[in-house]
Amino acid sequence: MNYPNGIKKGIDNKYITYKNRGMTLESDLNVTNQYYIENNIAYIYKKPTPIKVVKADYNSKGLRVIKEAYYSEPSTTDYNGIYKGNYIDYEAKETKNKSYFPLSNIHEHQITHLRHIESQNGISFLIVRFTTLNKTYLLSTKDFLDYIDKMKKSTIPISYFESHGYLIKEKYIKRVDYLEIVDKIWRLS
Amino acid sequence: MNYPNGIKKGIDNKYITYKNRGMTLESDLNVTNQYYIENNIAYIYKKPTPIKVVKADYNSKGLRVIKEAYYSEPSTTDYNGIYKGNYIDYEAKETKNKSYFPLSNIHEHQITHLRHIESQNGISFLIVRFTTLNKTYLLSTKDFLDYIDKMKKSTIPISYFESHGYLIKEKYIKRVDYLEIVDKIWRLS
Repeated sequence: MNYPNGIKKGIDNKYITYKNRGMTLESDLNVTNQYYIENNIAYIYKKPTPIKVVKADYNSKGLRVIKEAYYSEPSTTDYNGIYKGNYIDYEAKETKNKSYFPLSNIHEHQITHLRHIESQNGISFLIVRFTTLNKTYLLSTKDFLDYIDKMKKSTIPISYFESHGYLIKEKYIKRVDYLEIVDKIWRLS
Repeated sequence: MNYPNGIKKGIDNKYITYKNRGMTLESDLNVTNQYYIENNIAYIYKKPTPIKVVKADYNSKGLRVIKEAYYSEPSTTDYNGIYKGNYIDYEAKETKNKSYFPLSNIHEHQITHLRHIESQNGISFLIVRFTTLNKTYLLSTKDFLDYIDKMKKSTIPISYFESHGYLIKEKYIKRVDYLEIVDKIWRLS
């Protein structure tokens, strides 16, 4: 499936082995979030992709069928939920680039969304995977907003992720155990 | 726009006057949530409607266009967000019925979703409007689950909303000021 801006998202894959490298970040997050749910650690889920329906009709079985629709620009992030009683919210992105993360990956409305959560003292962040380097970072919304508000640039260099973000270790079952890092940053454990 | 199961949802309406009775619950919630956001009281928003895309193509402008898609059964509730640092989540429904709320309005997956939130100590509830009576109730997920788990019925009588729910007063700007009731139930103020 293709999403706006040519962003490719992974498909669900229930058959994951340790050797199965090159899984998409989305697949890894699905597996991790499923682990969190099954072990009653957190309840974090993916929101539906926003779609603008232009034309719809009923088919011969009386079922509503959409005949024309478009992917609309997301006004929120992809994931949210609850962890230790806290509201948690994040956006996950991959880039093939080795040296920087292009800000065109994050829409203006999503930044507004993150500002709202920040002002309400929610826990929010970005998870960015540099696929070529096989490195996945968590960057808090606070540090993300600090950067974009001060720097007025169109990219974030990987050095900023190294200095202000947290490298997420790749694990076996909890593929991207980001809550371990959330515990550290927000002192939850 | 028509949704699955013949549920009708309201359209956005930015031009609301005090005399404008008969607004849908969704419109009233939009206005109320907008008030909460603008006054930095809470950040609560509506999730996109889940749609399953079957066929998509590119149009002559190179834009991705969906040619065949269906409304899928919702796996979560319609609204969620953050209030006083707490995760908040609810489903809003209208019924024309005067004496009971048909449980067919709430999908199995949505009940599972509410159970997850309950187990993670989130704040969640139903907002049900009996349109013919012009009465809107808030019923906590705890009381909702208590009822459906014990009673095994296909409806909830209005008497249960009267005894276990809270009537939401209709106001001028904060059309359905449900956070006032959330404060009471969860002792947040």
